[in-house]
Amino acid sequence: MSKNKNAIVEKKLVGLADIVIDAAKRKKDPTIEIPVRSLSNVKFNEKKGIIEMGENTQERTFFNVAMAKKFMQTILVGDALAELQRANLTTSLREIYYRTKHTIGDSHENTFDGQDESDPVIEDLEVGLEALREELHVRADNGGTIIGPLVLEDDGDRIDCSRLGKGGYSVPSIVEDDFVSIKKCTADFVLLVEKGTQWNRLAEDRFWKKYNCILLTGNGQPPRGVRRLARRLNEEKKLPVYVLVDNDPWGYYIYSVIKQGSINLAFESKRMAIPQAKFVGLSSADPEKYGLPRNVGIKLNEKDIARAKELQNYPWFQKKEWQLELKRMLSSGLKFELDALANKDFQYLTKKYLPKKLADKDWLD
Amino acid sequence: MSKNKNAIVEKKLVGLADIVIDAAKRKKDPTIEIPVRSLSNVKFNEKKGIIEMGENTQERTFFNVAMAKKFMQTILVGDALAELQRANLTTSLREIYYRTKHTIGDSHENTFDGQDESDPVIEDLEVGLEALREELHVRADNGGTIIGPLVLEDDGDRIDCSRLGKGGYSVPSIVEDDFVSIKKCTADFVLLVEKGTQWNRLAEDRFWKKYNCILLTGNGQPPRGVRRLARRLNEEKKLPVYVLVDNDPWGYYIYSVIKQGSINLAFESKRMAIPQAKFVGLSSADPEKYGLPRNVGIKLNEKDIARAKELQNYPWFQKKEWQLELKRMLSSGLKFELDALANKDFQYLTKKYLPKKLADKDWLD
Repeated sequence: MSKNKNAIVEKKLVGLADIVIDAAKRKKDPTIEIPVRSLSNVKFNEKKGIIEMGENTQERTFFNVAMAKKFMQTILVGDALAELQRANLTTSLREIYYRTKHTIGDSHENTFDGQDESDPVIEDLEVGLEALREELHVRADNGGTIIGPLVLEDDGDRIDCSRLGKGGYSVPSIVEDDFVSIKKCTADFVLLVEKGTQWNRLAEDRFWKKYNCILLTGNGQPPRGVRRLARRLNEEKKLPVYVLVDNDPWGYYIYSVIKQGSINLAFESKRMAIPQAKFVGLSSADPEKYGLPRNVGIKLNEKDIARAKELQNYPWFQKKEWQLELKRMLSSGLKFELDALANKDFQYLTKKYLPKKLADKDWLD
Repeated sequence: MSKNKNAIVEKKLVGLADIVIDAAKRKKDPTIEIPVRSLSNVKFNEKKGIIEMGENTQERTFFNVAMAKKFMQTILVGDALAELQRANLTTSLREIYYRTKHTIGDSHENTFDGQDESDPVIEDLEVGLEALREELHVRADNGGTIIGPLVLEDDGDRIDCSRLGKGGYSVPSIVEDDFVSIKKCTADFVLLVEKGTQWNRLAEDRFWKKYNCILLTGNGQPPRGVRRLARRLNEEKKLPVYVLVDNDPWGYYIYSVIKQGSINLAFESKRMAIPQAKFVGLSSADPEKYGLPRNVGIKLNEKDIARAKELQNYPWFQKKEWQLELKRMLSSGLKFELDALANKDFQYLTKKYLPKKLADKDWLD
């Protein structure tokens, strides 16, 4: 964590307090400008290939019965975040909530009644101050794992990810350059695998060595640290990122969040999304192509069907190939888990499926 | 993975097939003996301090309409498990299901219709063959993280867990000696932390260095690899294991599973449980002792209360101190998350709470 970067972020946060002081001196109503984070202010930027926020903002003022509490909450959270920068600490959303919670004066009123009140304030500040949550030193879960020809530096330690057995390095939640720096990377691409099971298969079979790639997993929907590390490897090291997920609407969605970002966190796409990411599978064309029997498919349920239809309407799934992909799933009535490849052979993923996919450049964009 | 150990396990599995061949030769009904895995055959061994299985077994025969399918399934799973040993591979429960699923002959009958049919068969074999799931090469989730003065060897790589920054080593699901060996350990104790957030706090503050301990987390209910590694450190390196969980019935339960094992997997306690494990908190006495305000407590809901009352009746919670602990929670009507310690100070856990707990030996057994 660099003192320099902390000072910059702290200055932004202290700027919030300055607004209040200035307004008080001038006997005016303290007002802060917060970008609007609602669907109406989100759009898909086709050229950049990311979901991003529009320009709309709203004012939050103190002398306004409807806004006074939220204003106070914003300043309290800003204060806690500034404390983190000064002490060079990181924390979680939940701990920010607990840290800033107290009873006001002699009243029975709490500053915050639940984390659902403090989380949006943190998001407000992320957008308002143009600071990624990680730069505000707020962690999410870790829970990602990485292995491959890559050397990182974390807290002064040099970590060679090609020498960590089959276990690998546990990806921290915050992988900004002042926390984790990329010292060396000789890989040709990143393979981002949805599930830990398949990541384990590939690690055990040393797939990363034979194909000179980085194996990354988030053990499910990838946490922020995993997405951000993949983005950095893509942006700074120019590595293609291939995404391997289950063949179901949730797999498609995980891929789309990695690639374009999400509607809810549209303001982060510009630093989290990987518009060049490619979908290597499972595709709804794969069961036929790779001879998976129908009985290892799982019948789509109502939720799956509804979700697939939603995806059909998203602007970022409008490419012909994606419409075909979705249509094919819906008309087959089946979804397939990555695990189903084991029906052929325990090592089918490593020895047949991925080698063929990569050789044929058989992916969706 | 040692060829030797594989050969021993494979031999046990092949023994299953031999039973069938022998019976066929003698024109008898093939029969295998399976220990009974039901509540009636589970008891708490007070002397050993673990939940263990009794001696009851049942016969599974082929020439019996009610048992023929299950017999066939047992042989199929045994065959897949033997394949893993021969090829020196590991896999997941789910992939075993897919691997062994096929349609029988010209019928429309599947060997397995769901994983709920193959999982119990794997458990049968674990118990019947006295082989831990890990020895059968069946993985669960990874998802644990470790840091501290410990050197491991994994797949030929020497991994110094004191030189992995704040990220740490991602604990694999299988940490048996032929997968992960403990090369060096100079720690004084293991701190097993329920939540990743607090683990991150302790890693960031280098708590492990100051207190010469190993920091281990499973990011929630600890997965098997984490439990087994803690157990090995306790058994082989004689390290005390302290468990830090939320102050709620689920936290107590997580602790009790680490310590005594669980009813469902009673047959594994003798290789997974850590009867010497101590509960360092959060205790229901801590909010008062450490001055946590009532408003950072969370009201117990109906489920919490019902669960706490169940715990009061478990034989392994009968010690006076535990009855008091549970009663105190129920009468306060509140539960507290570890995260609530941040109300005092972001580093309260590292700088005040744990140092005092350890100095005062303020734990429950």
